[in-house]
Amino acid sequence: MSVVTLEKCRENIRKQLDNVVDFWLKYSLDRVHGGFFTCIGKDGKIYDELKYVWLQGRQVWMYCRLYRTMDRFHKPEILEAATVGGAFLRKFARVSSSSGQWKCAFCLTRDGKALKVQRTIFSECFYIMAMDELSRLTGDKDMQLEAEQMMEQLIYWVQVDPSGLGRPQLPGEVPINSLSVPMMLMCLVQQLTEGRGQEVAQKYKELGNWCVEQILQHIQRAGTAILENVSVDGSELPGCQGRLQNPGHALEAGWFLMLYGAQSGDKEIHRTAIRNFVELPYQYGWDKEHGGLFYFLDVDGHCPTQLEWSMKLWWPHCEALIAFLMAYSHTRKPELLEIFSEVYQYTFSHFPDAENGEWFGYLTQEGKVALDFKGGPFKGFFHVPRCLYMCERILDDLLENKD
Amino acid sequence: MSVVTLEKCRENIRKQLDNVVDFWLKYSLDRVHGGFFTCIGKDGKIYDELKYVWLQGRQVWMYCRLYRTMDRFHKPEILEAATVGGAFLRKFARVSSSSGQWKCAFCLTRDGKALKVQRTIFSECFYIMAMDELSRLTGDKDMQLEAEQMMEQLIYWVQVDPSGLGRPQLPGEVPINSLSVPMMLMCLVQQLTEGRGQEVAQKYKELGNWCVEQILQHIQRAGTAILENVSVDGSELPGCQGRLQNPGHALEAGWFLMLYGAQSGDKEIHRTAIRNFVELPYQYGWDKEHGGLFYFLDVDGHCPTQLEWSMKLWWPHCEALIAFLMAYSHTRKPELLEIFSEVYQYTFSHFPDAENGEWFGYLTQEGKVALDFKGGPFKGFFHVPRCLYMCERILDDLLENKD
Repeated sequence: MSVVTLEKCRENIRKQLDNVVDFWLKYSLDRVHGGFFTCIGKDGKIYDELKYVWLQGRQVWMYCRLYRTMDRFHKPEILEAATVGGAFLRKFARVSSSSGQWKCAFCLTRDGKALKVQRTIFSECFYIMAMDELSRLTGDKDMQLEAEQMMEQLIYWVQVDPSGLGRPQLPGEVPINSLSVPMMLMCLVQQLTEGRGQEVAQKYKELGNWCVEQILQHIQRAGTAILENVSVDGSELPGCQGRLQNPGHALEAGWFLMLYGAQSGDKEIHRTAIRNFVELPYQYGWDKEHGGLFYFLDVDGHCPTQLEWSMKLWWPHCEALIAFLMAYSHTRKPELLEIFSEVYQYTFSHFPDAENGEWFGYLTQEGKVALDFKGGPFKGFFHVPRCLYMCERILDDLLENKD
Repeated sequence: MSVVTLEKCRENIRKQLDNVVDFWLKYSLDRVHGGFFTCIGKDGKIYDELKYVWLQGRQVWMYCRLYRTMDRFHKPEILEAATVGGAFLRKFARVSSSSGQWKCAFCLTRDGKALKVQRTIFSECFYIMAMDELSRLTGDKDMQLEAEQMMEQLIYWVQVDPSGLGRPQLPGEVPINSLSVPMMLMCLVQQLTEGRGQEVAQKYKELGNWCVEQILQHIQRAGTAILENVSVDGSELPGCQGRLQNPGHALEAGWFLMLYGAQSGDKEIHRTAIRNFVELPYQYGWDKEHGGLFYFLDVDGHCPTQLEWSMKLWWPHCEALIAFLMAYSHTRKPELLEIFSEVYQYTFSHFPDAENGEWFGYLTQEGKVALDFKGGPFKGFFHVPRCLYMCERILDDLLENKD
């Protein structure tokens, strides 16, 4: 790709970001009960009023981030949406139960009553992301403190004792290092420490290093595979669970690790991030026949048991765009830009809906739209705008320094 | 279909049943630890050693039923497999926990350690089916008593207090009548009472009537739809959950209801079974473009949020074959045989694997094999052989009485 095509690419990405922000501002905010509708049909119609806490937290975070860091989104309606969403989350997301005061629900009714609680840490993770980012806008110190306190609880659940999550310990279970957990914690460390000075950085330094170590354990089979689940001492687990690969997750971990490597100056981590978590998942995860990234694979070539394994989901493509563009911008290796370009062409020719705006999320292996809604229980205002936002910023840097 | 083609159809079904029984006898039994492997690849290779309790129970039931009621399966290797599977189930499936002595695990390690417990009743249901049917072979009265005692526990969980299942009550939750629950209980009533005389029949009579009433509540929208989830007073629920349709489940409930109607002499129930639970789900569930039954649909035509909604799964086709053939054999209406024939042609030209035996389970909307294993966490030795067994018996009756 030449500078001219990078210019064109930035122009398209900017337009897409504007389009996607407009779509969610127009359809998603619930002005009656607060929070966001996220089950939004292809033409903007709300088809379900449930409020999923992951998506509420992510949407607050995204609005705040756009408002705070991009001039053209520094607009009252974005601040309003972020504030209304944040207030809803803070008022309703936490469930009081015997398992501790910090557990959050997974799903709420429209008016904020808890409907489902997951026995994992992810609702809490997105709650923390939202509160930390919102506190940066509002200057609300209590909110920031709350985010840090919930983070302490998370660390305790992950590193010391998970029983507060509510999952009974069973005799056949072995503790597992699932890639999503250290990835998510690393993302939170980057969130909580960003621009906050040495004291906060120091506070989370050890945790950041632990996350890196845990993520690196997923490099298996002499560096030829990233496996989604490994044992806590970093060895391969038996069966489907042990052989599972999720190329999108690996790519997302890749750009988190790249950021860590760049910030800490650790060149070895940075090289590993690109080689093992960016180039490698593309090599095994890209569908050579139909294009696009598979959702799940089995490292030994067995058929995965997840019914959706061969589908092309929007979010792995978002993560791949960020990962390859970042890798190129850090290294200027043309082969990385080539792959970015391939992912870019597949993504923009398949996912965006030219008619009604926003992106489709779920395609068949062959690239046909399989589910036509714009938002659902797991697709909200997050992966698409975060990808466009990250890519626009990286392209700004690249095009400013075009030597 | 003429008598000649019904003869051909029976011949094919017999061959298929023999082939499927052989496949599982050959690959599934674990002679080291007992129980069955069910994660079996397309060519018979075991790709995971976990033992799913639903499938263990179903496989024991199916072997016993074949051994007990079909002469050509009255063979020592089938008795052995049933006994080895039953012993494993009885020894390992139940988990002792504070929630009661009858809760069963969902998934066990190869050597029988509990790995996962679902907070639903289905592991217990298949445990009961297995124990009742096995006790009919062995004459083991304790085993029969155990099945009945677990059944009492189930009834208590469903009708009185579900807290023993371990799911915390949340403020946003409303109690739901999910079709699978009364369907499953009705199947168990039929199992426990079959051929056991008046006393046992009387014992479960009230429960059977309750199941029928609960199933009929799923007829919604002036008789034009079967909805998978309704409120406990039989009204429609809001959102995706309320609009969900599962044609395969409706068809399965259809033949359970038809059996109930035929046995109790209730002609109105029998007509409702055929009209609302057999003909109707076919009308809205059959894919007019590519053939086959959709897995999930939304009654208002929104896109379902289940990623696999448009896939063609083996088991709804199995249920449809039983339902239409039974409906035809009870009524002799040619239009029911016509639909049986259409489902038959789709099923037998898409699911069986001529090369390695048994059936594929998961096709794309267009009918391409999407997951190529023969057994997995939810596909075992059950829907295919039960369908072939039921159809063969119905065809035997039909062809004997061909006037």
